[in-house]
Amino acid sequence: MVIRNLKGVTDFDPATMNLRNRVTDTLRRNFELYGFQPLDTAQLNYRDLLTYKYGESAEIVKEIYSLSDQGERDLGLRFDLTVPFCKYIALNRSLKLPFKRYEIGKVFRNGPVKAGRLREFVQCDVDVVGDGSRQIEVELLELAINCYLQLGIKPEIEIGNRQLLVGIIEQLGVTNHHDAIISVLDKIKKITPAEMMTELGKYLSTDVATTLLQRVQLDLSALAQLLPNNAGVVAVQELWTELSALGLTQYCRFNPALARGLNVYTGTVWEVFDATHHYASSLGGGGRYDNIITNFVNNGVAYPAVGMSFGLEPITALLANTTNPNPTQLLIVPLGTTAVCHQLANQLRGAGIATMLWTAKPKVGKALEYAAATQIRYVTVIGDNEVTNGQITVKDLTTGTAATLALKDPQGLVKYLTTTNK
Amino acid sequence: MVIRNLKGVTDFDPATMNLRNRVTDTLRRNFELYGFQPLDTAQLNYRDLLTYKYGESAEIVKEIYSLSDQGERDLGLRFDLTVPFCKYIALNRSLKLPFKRYEIGKVFRNGPVKAGRLREFVQCDVDVVGDGSRQIEVELLELAINCYLQLGIKPEIEIGNRQLLVGIIEQLGVTNHHDAIISVLDKIKKITPAEMMTELGKYLSTDVATTLLQRVQLDLSALAQLLPNNAGVVAVQELWTELSALGLTQYCRFNPALARGLNVYTGTVWEVFDATHHYASSLGGGGRYDNIITNFVNNGVAYPAVGMSFGLEPITALLANTTNPNPTQLLIVPLGTTAVCHQLANQLRGAGIATMLWTAKPKVGKALEYAAATQIRYVTVIGDNEVTNGQITVKDLTTGTAATLALKDPQGLVKYLTTTNK
Repeated sequence: MVIRNLKGVTDFDPATMNLRNRVTDTLRRNFELYGFQPLDTAQLNYRDLLTYKYGESAEIVKEIYSLSDQGERDLGLRFDLTVPFCKYIALNRSLKLPFKRYEIGKVFRNGPVKAGRLREFVQCDVDVVGDGSRQIEVELLELAINCYLQLGIKPEIEIGNRQLLVGIIEQLGVTNHHDAIISVLDKIKKITPAEMMTELGKYLSTDVATTLLQRVQLDLSALAQLLPNNAGVVAVQELWTELSALGLTQYCRFNPALARGLNVYTGTVWEVFDATHHYASSLGGGGRYDNIITNFVNNGVAYPAVGMSFGLEPITALLANTTNPNPTQLLIVPLGTTAVCHQLANQLRGAGIATMLWTAKPKVGKALEYAAATQIRYVTVIGDNEVTNGQITVKDLTTGTAATLALKDPQGLVKYLTTTNK
Repeated sequence: MVIRNLKGVTDFDPATMNLRNRVTDTLRRNFELYGFQPLDTAQLNYRDLLTYKYGESAEIVKEIYSLSDQGERDLGLRFDLTVPFCKYIALNRSLKLPFKRYEIGKVFRNGPVKAGRLREFVQCDVDVVGDGSRQIEVELLELAINCYLQLGIKPEIEIGNRQLLVGIIEQLGVTNHHDAIISVLDKIKKITPAEMMTELGKYLSTDVATTLLQRVQLDLSALAQLLPNNAGVVAVQELWTELSALGLTQYCRFNPALARGLNVYTGTVWEVFDATHHYASSLGGGGRYDNIITNFVNNGVAYPAVGMSFGLEPITALLANTTNPNPTQLLIVPLGTTAVCHQLANQLRGAGIATMLWTAKPKVGKALEYAAATQIRYVTVIGDNEVTNGQITVKDLTTGTAATLALKDPQGLVKYLTTTNK
């Protein structure tokens, strides 16, 4: 047996996990402040439930990990959090709407492995079902801006609208291949204008393609003149009015070409980028999808829905170079009586100072080496002398300085640690 | 296609998840205060890695969900967090020891489904590798006591020692079937004395079985006289001295018969129960296992290890009847201008008050009904009058009272909400 990890899966080590937890804790805190509630759906599902929305031939369905249980049932591991969300709504029809939920959990895709694309990864989704309003879209955008800012990322959110894109295409007399054309336009930042023309040429004459490409780069007022009654134009205007009143337009940019690939979106769509453009990939995105749950539940009731996904992998990649210190601040090394050390450690922990007691042998030299290697900033060695004198010396491994403090004054120690450890 | 969940898996709804998050957040906070670091290992593994420790015939190995990937590799879903921990240590041999980690994550067992036994469930494990000391066992017990107390559970921790149990058996001249005999003794609380004698009778004469059964119910001083040099007796004595100095013996009870089933334990073992005995099942347990990682890594180095598992399912079952209010405290219903409502909601969120803005239509009646049904305690309706007068009325749905507060004084509103919502 060779001890190894599978291709496309990974173990997240403590330093990485501290960063990942910082991100997911920030998201969770904000989700809950906005009235979203946690949901945790099963990873194991009947396979036919997972394939229902897309059909067996869909690319994503080919990437389902299939398995069976002792009862020979055909199972699959979930590949996203949207299908389980649909299932949950369908199984809980007495839920009060709007139902605002978030879910942070693992999903699995048995597909090609490349940089930034794992086979087992975490999704962070926040969605509302039963709310067709513009206001909830504003709330989600505001929530997103708050989350990214609190993570130290200035966001630039590109905002588009699928109805607007369809309106632009239809006005040019194009009646077919809307989804295919939109998929091409969606690549506007990824391919050259020449490549774009070639791809559009599969469905459109050169004249129409040229005009289309111009129009999806117009600003909102120009498009409002061109398509005065288009629902997508009205939606973007309404959003901008609200975002402006909230002082949030500085983080938003109108991009009429944005479609976010999937044809599940029915109205507003958005995609989040690093405003400094140091990081190119999308950091998250979302939009309105009024048909998915409606079709899935299929009971004659409309289930308008809107939500977004925060990209944990790109966000942590972007933040990987920020300082992520060891959360353990102090290492206490007992040389004599240990009960005093246990008690001091406990008093510090009660004050929120993460404290490790050096319980392993051999003692001091190894402990100091350990603190240095694992970046625990402060160390104190407590032997019988310290207990007798009531004074301890706390070494700061970052500055190389030392402070003498009273053993019986844990508050003084807490103050020293919190004021020096910035 | 029938929309349904698999047998043995479940979706945790928001009310349940709020409780589960309260438990896991409390555990995480305490783990980190004690210097344990988060680790997140892959759920998907090579199947041979999962079976290596136990062999194909083991009961637990029969419960592995098997699957394969596009490369036709034989995979399995992890069934515990210990095997992935061993793998992580084996793959990261330059880790500084002691390595203190916790992991909270899903595991899968394709076994029989009954009450309290799911096929997909969460384990919460905290372990140290590279520390053979008694002190770290004290730290883990203290950590456990703190966690349970903070969750509102008074713990009774039964503490035993495998070396002591072996010592008692060997002193009676028994040279074979130690593991089997210990497994029988471990059932002392679950089966009758007559059943116990029948089961022990498979391996021991009636006389020896009778004496054994008496001895595993002796107190520590009696066992210390009987087995003065036994390493297990010394270990329990050392533990009790430390626990006593820390004032923790009130939560601990010596139980020489305790073995915790698995023969992987090599020394101290413990099992946590509800001290009020309103809840009978184990709430968690742990112990020292000095051979598992050593054998797994198999590089001539000793990897002493000790750790424990907190039972999320029994803990939440025990706490299910405690109050778990909706974390969303206030519902703001905008009737006129929405920007004012967005701003107020944001100010409250900034002060830590989870606030939902009613963005869906139709308005007031539906919103009040929603707040009542989802147990949001406070509601305020803000229309043009409120904006003009600068005064809002906050209804407390629990008491039926209402308070008038200044719209432009969010701190006053925060104070009202935090002082009345106890």
